[in-house]
Amino acid sequence: MDFEFDATTEDLRARVRDFLDSEITPAEQVFEEQLAGSDDPWAWSSVPVLRELKDKAKTAGLWNLFLPGANGAGLTNLQYAPLAEITGRSFLAPAVFNCSAPDTGNMEVLNEFGSPEQQEQWLKPLLRGEIRSSFAMTEPDVASSDATNISTRIERDGDDYVINGRKWWITGAMNPEAKIFIVMGKTDPSAERHRQQSQILVPRDTPGLEIKRGMEVFGYDDHDHGGHAELAFHDVRVPASNLIAGEGLGFAIAQARLGPGRIHHCMRSIGVAEKAIELMCARADARTAFGKPLSEQGVIRDWIAEARVRVEQLRLLVLKTAWLMDTVGNKGAHTEIQAIKIATPRTVQWILDHAIQLYGAGGLSQDFSLAKAYAGIRTLRFADGPDEVHKASLARRELRRQAEARG
Amino acid sequence: MDFEFDATTEDLRARVRDFLDSEITPAEQVFEEQLAGSDDPWAWSSVPVLRELKDKAKTAGLWNLFLPGANGAGLTNLQYAPLAEITGRSFLAPAVFNCSAPDTGNMEVLNEFGSPEQQEQWLKPLLRGEIRSSFAMTEPDVASSDATNISTRIERDGDDYVINGRKWWITGAMNPEAKIFIVMGKTDPSAERHRQQSQILVPRDTPGLEIKRGMEVFGYDDHDHGGHAELAFHDVRVPASNLIAGEGLGFAIAQARLGPGRIHHCMRSIGVAEKAIELMCARADARTAFGKPLSEQGVIRDWIAEARVRVEQLRLLVLKTAWLMDTVGNKGAHTEIQAIKIATPRTVQWILDHAIQLYGAGGLSQDFSLAKAYAGIRTLRFADGPDEVHKASLARRELRRQAEARG
Amino acid sequence: MDFEFDATTEDLRARVRDFLDSEITPAEQVFEEQLAGSDDPWAWSSVPVLRELKDKAKTAGLWNLFLPGANGAGLTNLQYAPLAEITGRSFLAPAVFNCSAPDTGNMEVLNEFGSPEQQEQWLKPLLRGEIRSSFAMTEPDVASSDATNISTRIERDGDDYVINGRKWWITGAMNPEAKIFIVMGKTDPSAERHRQQSQILVPRDTPGLEIKRGMEVFGYDDHDHGGHAELAFHDVRVPASNLIAGEGLGFAIAQARLGPGRIHHCMRSIGVAEKAIELMCARADARTAFGKPLSEQGVIRDWIAEARVRVEQLRLLVLKTAWLMDTVGNKGAHTEIQAIKIATPRTVQWILDHAIQLYGAGGLSQDFSLAKAYAGIRTLRFADGPDEVHKASLARRELRRQAEARG
Amino acid sequence: MDFEFDATTEDLRARVRDFLDSEITPAEQVFEEQLAGSDDPWAWSSVPVLRELKDKAKTAGLWNLFLPGANGAGLTNLQYAPLAEITGRSFLAPAVFNCSAPDTGNMEVLNEFGSPEQQEQWLKPLLRGEIRSSFAMTEPDVASSDATNISTRIERDGDDYVINGRKWWITGAMNPEAKIFIVMGKTDPSAERHRQQSQILVPRDTPGLEIKRGMEVFGYDDHDHGGHAELAFHDVRVPASNLIAGEGLGFAIAQARLGPGRIHHCMRSIGVAEKAIELMCARADARTAFGKPLSEQGVIRDWIAEARVRVEQLRLLVLKTAWLMDTVGNKGAHTEIQAIKIATPRTVQWILDHAIQLYGAGGLSQDFSLAKAYAGIRTLRFADGPDEVHKASLARRELRRQAEARG
Repeated sequence: MDFEFDATTEDLRARVRDFLDSEITPAEQVFEEQLAGSDDPWAWSSVPVLRELKDKAKTAGLWNLFLPGANGAGLTNLQYAPLAEITGRSFLAPAVFNCSAPDTGNMEVLNEFGSPEQQEQWLKPLLRGEIRSSFAMTEPDVASSDATNISTRIERDGDDYVINGRKWWITGAMNPEAKIFIVMGKTDPSAERHRQQSQILVPRDTPGLEIKRGMEVFGYDDHDHGGHAELAFHDVRVPASNLIAGEGLGFAIAQARLGPGRIHHCMRSIGVAEKAIELMCARADARTAFGKPLSEQGVIRDWIAEARVRVEQLRLLVLKTAWLMDTVGNKGAHTEIQAIKIATPRTVQWILDHAIQLYGAGGLSQDFSLAKAYAGIRTLRFADGPDEVHKASLARRELRRQAEARG
Repeated sequence: MDFEFDATTEDLRARVRDFLDSEITPAEQVFEEQLAGSDDPWAWSSVPVLRELKDKAKTAGLWNLFLPGANGAGLTNLQYAPLAEITGRSFLAPAVFNCSAPDTGNMEVLNEFGSPEQQEQWLKPLLRGEIRSSFAMTEPDVASSDATNISTRIERDGDDYVINGRKWWITGAMNPEAKIFIVMGKTDPSAERHRQQSQILVPRDTPGLEIKRGMEVFGYDDHDHGGHAELAFHDVRVPASNLIAGEGLGFAIAQARLGPGRIHHCMRSIGVAEKAIELMCARADARTAFGKPLSEQGVIRDWIAEARVRVEQLRLLVLKTAWLMDTVGNKGAHTEIQAIKIATPRTVQWILDHAIQLYGAGGLSQDFSLAKAYAGIRTLRFADGPDEVHKASLARRELRRQAEARG
Repeated sequence: MDFEFDATTEDLRARVRDFLDSEITPAEQVFEEQLAGSDDPWAWSSVPVLRELKDKAKTAGLWNLFLPGANGAGLTNLQYAPLAEITGRSFLAPAVFNCSAPDTGNMEVLNEFGSPEQQEQWLKPLLRGEIRSSFAMTEPDVASSDATNISTRIERDGDDYVINGRKWWITGAMNPEAKIFIVMGKTDPSAERHRQQSQILVPRDTPGLEIKRGMEVFGYDDHDHGGHAELAFHDVRVPASNLIAGEGLGFAIAQARLGPGRIHHCMRSIGVAEKAIELMCARADARTAFGKPLSEQGVIRDWIAEARVRVEQLRLLVLKTAWLMDTVGNKGAHTEIQAIKIATPRTVQWILDHAIQLYGAGGLSQDFSLAKAYAGIRTLRFADGPDEVHKASLARRELRRQAEARG
Repeated sequence: MDFEFDATTEDLRARVRDFLDSEITPAEQVFEEQLAGSDDPWAWSSVPVLRELKDKAKTAGLWNLFLPGANGAGLTNLQYAPLAEITGRSFLAPAVFNCSAPDTGNMEVLNEFGSPEQQEQWLKPLLRGEIRSSFAMTEPDVASSDATNISTRIERDGDDYVINGRKWWITGAMNPEAKIFIVMGKTDPSAERHRQQSQILVPRDTPGLEIKRGMEVFGYDDHDHGGHAELAFHDVRVPASNLIAGEGLGFAIAQARLGPGRIHHCMRSIGVAEKAIELMCARADARTAFGKPLSEQGVIRDWIAEARVRVEQLRLLVLKTAWLMDTVGNKGAHTEIQAIKIATPRTVQWILDHAIQLYGAGGLSQDFSLAKAYAGIRTLRFADGPDEVHKASLARRELRRQAEARG
């Protein structure tokens, strides 16, 4: 057992942090201004400063860090995790390094399950950072955490599939550069529970695909990373070759993307938490009330200590999960993957809530990043299924394991 | 001891609830549409349907219910409290009944402390619902919960006062119909700690009063009730007769408005909580996951029970506080006024957070009222001073009381 | 609505408090010493000083205060509740006033459901404070919160009933003066779910009734109020006339005793909480660490404020529940009776835990009453069924109520 | 970074666990019976079965595992930590392996700071498990978490030191085999804050050392591991050579013992938590209420999942702390040593509280280990100083670190 990062990781951590501090953070405001001045508020990925930063990152060799194997940077989950934490410090950073969701998951899926043609057409431009993509799973009318509830139909019709259904909260889809959507639906509702679903590629401009509106999170439309669209599929027809991997494999593919995605989300969230702790400490030192700085008041110190104690425990569990995925695979890391999904958002939410309280009304406003971060983190408590579903599942496994141990 | 409302209250509860259900709730969407179609998104109080509703409410005798005495409906705090709870069920309701903050507090101040001229010029049109007003206390650069930190200057200059300073989070001030501002500042920084401050009337169109921008709460600009402005006062000059009550009385006036305002806020918040519980139950019955309705799942039932258990306790404490204010005055109700300030926002926030979780992503979106309600309630944890300040003060008094009892 | 106690209540509050302070509290240590010196450590109710105090209380007219109607003091639940709170301040007080569980519930049952003979033989000596009693419901082998799980059999055999089964946690039963047991069992396991149970009187000396051992709570055997016995019934035979009210009425009788018992427990618990707050304040003033008294340290003040804010809300809900029982009956107060069962123990436990933390190791020791109080309060989270059962039930009713309101 | 234990650790884990399951757990009841039958209830370490188990453990090479270097098993903190976790599963295990507090800390102190004579006389018999010892620091009259409050005097008088003062909560000291006490007191109250204290060896039979009484924790006197004594020192005279290391070094020695002790306590506590989770699962499977096993009820599953999620995070932080102590020393691990002190007791307390709730009244009784474990864990929230002191200190360091990073 050893808690030190390896040399590759330490080198990359230093370079990513340096790039973040010197290039990305100073560009955040420029990005906001350029986006505010653009014709299409949703076209965030076309903003000039972002394109420049991506070129610089590519040149610096800080590109596709998330992707293992020859097509990516070739890092393990454990090596990438601390880099993801650093990118959590700026809302721009994931995009700059071509490491932002849902493109990362989509690239992983195409890399692992895509046909050569699918890879040529969609994976390559995604890897080059030329286009963006979306993943369309969640539906408005059903509890989508239970995949068997998915009601969108993907029906074979000759050499095509025809898609009908409604989706919402499709992140990034308001951005006109999100050129390709991976859509989850049912090809065979009569099949076994987890073999009914398939995933299929639907280009943005396919007739019948209607992008209805952007959903808001608290009051944010998140146009600065492509929003969250409500979509309607009206007899959307694509060639049968657009199906990924094969009929009935949709659930399995969805499971496969979950593990790495969970690590990424959790580590970025920890980056958010660390930044919030910094902001707390800075404010506590700067403000005086009732005759002494907030940083000398017992209740504030209690919050800061709590934040540190909680985030230290949390990070170790996420890193261990990454290590398990590298050594025994997603399946062997199942419990831990669920555990970090449960533990991370609430911990970071707690820290952000207290940081906001320290900043008073300012903390909820556009003047600091805290309220927006809170909104984003809050969604993670039900993204990929609400915590309650994961807790029930984790407990069921614990009960089974203990029953076996009792013999 | 008796937990039944009196006959007057029961009659008004029925009428207010009936008016709300038959007139206000159906008009909410109309209001949003009319406001969206208006030239000035901040001019919410000019929206036709709102003006019509106000006329109807006035005709129905449901007007200025908050104001005791001859100028208002003449209700006690205890009689008005359950009506305020009902108005918490719709974001439009307080305005329809001319009972919305900060006008209520401003009317109370003018009613109690205003000169006959001040009452003629500003109180009367406010009571008639013709204009709106703001209260400018919070400042961006200091911990404003400590009133001695207030740095805005109000300086005597001949027959005038000249005001300089910055304010923010001035609710309602983005609305062009907010014609009059009550401004808190220091007339004598060298006086005793709580005698330095004064309150003064500043008409909206006074030269030097700059309305800089609207602050956002999470992503909401709250334009549908006038927003929260950042203001700058550059040598703003008003006649000396605009001072309220007298120099050095600003702190005392601010204290006097706190009590009733606290009751109003808390009871409206309880109305928000009740509506959230209704939404929770409706959703829990409507959604099925993993083979049974959410309403039959143990964890969801736990949330619903918790919500009920918490809100029942809370409401009684707010009602008792109202009763104390009526019987022994604000001073005698000091502990309880602080206690409800501490207990209410967090309880309602807890309920809203769980209601949101039940609704999943939808709960954070514009499709339900939950996220917006959450944002509003969250601000109450530091409005009028952060909970932590009130807890420290309440504890100090408890310690003193106990020390006296020990002798 | 009125939050003032009536004149009768205020008079009794003053007299009970005065009697407590002048007579009972000073006698606590004498009682402990006399009990320690007695032959039978379980025979607590025979301790001389307790007998003397009971005589004094009877003379002072402070006797059977819990019992409504002609046989008792004739108080309403709302009148008795604040007296129960005062008795929570001393472990001796309930017994002194002949108001201690489980005698109170047993007397209520006999008063309401007992035959004239049963009343003559058992109720009268209980009312005079001459004997003690126990209520035997909980069983070791089943989840007793679900009354249908009760497995003790009460079988008719000629003119007798024959009882077989095991019970535990039978409070007071280790005391040799607990002369009569009310036993819950099944007379007809094939009847409708809530008509299977009956209650029957079993004198202590009935052959076949084995008192096996005293159960401990945290390390306390609670011999100073009769302990908690494990009992075995081996063919215990009593005359058929010992049955209370009639076969199949056991569940209904159990429900009837719950309401008042809940009020008593909750109000006494609030008395415990108030005493803990006093102890917190006293300690916080007395101890200095790191250069200033604990009472000036922010975190400690936070605890004290929290304790006050929580207990004020809680008390009002218990009082309202008492009022509801008086005005609309147990059935109409069902939700509130469950709510106070859920809210009270955890609130008081929280306060005690923090009081203990303030006292450090001393707080857990025999030198202060805190740890013992904690142990007692902790049991209330599952006495009469665990909180979770009550929450599930309360939520079910809330869901039904809301569904009806939605129409 | 690597989360696998090394081969030595894995080998020892298997052997310790095997010894525990086959030898210690079955002997627990025998021990209780033999102790109950012995003349002196405090003389726990003389119980025959314990002596036998110690001989077996020594023979098996499972002895002094806690002690690094040549005098002990030579393990690192990281190697010993998972063994300590296993010993947390039985109250007997630490003593069997000669790894129980406070002997471990005392042996560490004598090993590192003791003179050759002190080592010969006291360390050797302790290492052989022939005698026991105590550490006397806490005082009844002062907040002992602030070492400068310690008031016991150690005064030089010729070739002797003379000790006067009171101590309490001196663990193990009720046991007549606790032959040697390490006593903390002040040799120079006028010296610099952390140079006033010294530690000195006081044999049990020294005249003037009065062992007054055993303190209780909740209702437990903990006689099965030597209790917690209140001591009085009346002109207790020992040779000057009994001083450890030198005058003024008492605080430094106390700090040195804290790190390893913290790891031991925390890991044993995690063993307690794991056992509690096992008990929860077993009970949840075994009990049925309202028609289905508790293990299928949502709220219970929620508890089990929470327990697992919390304990996984916690263990990793303790292990990392052990690793830090091994690699950068106690000082470099300061933050983490405080963090695990804060995080561990409350996490384990939460788990035990829920396990107790699952067991109902049984959970608080002598029939299961839960209530006793709860009592023990509860003391850790103020042992070595209350959590609040550690949180304040940790926050101060975090604030300083962040201020330096801001530059």
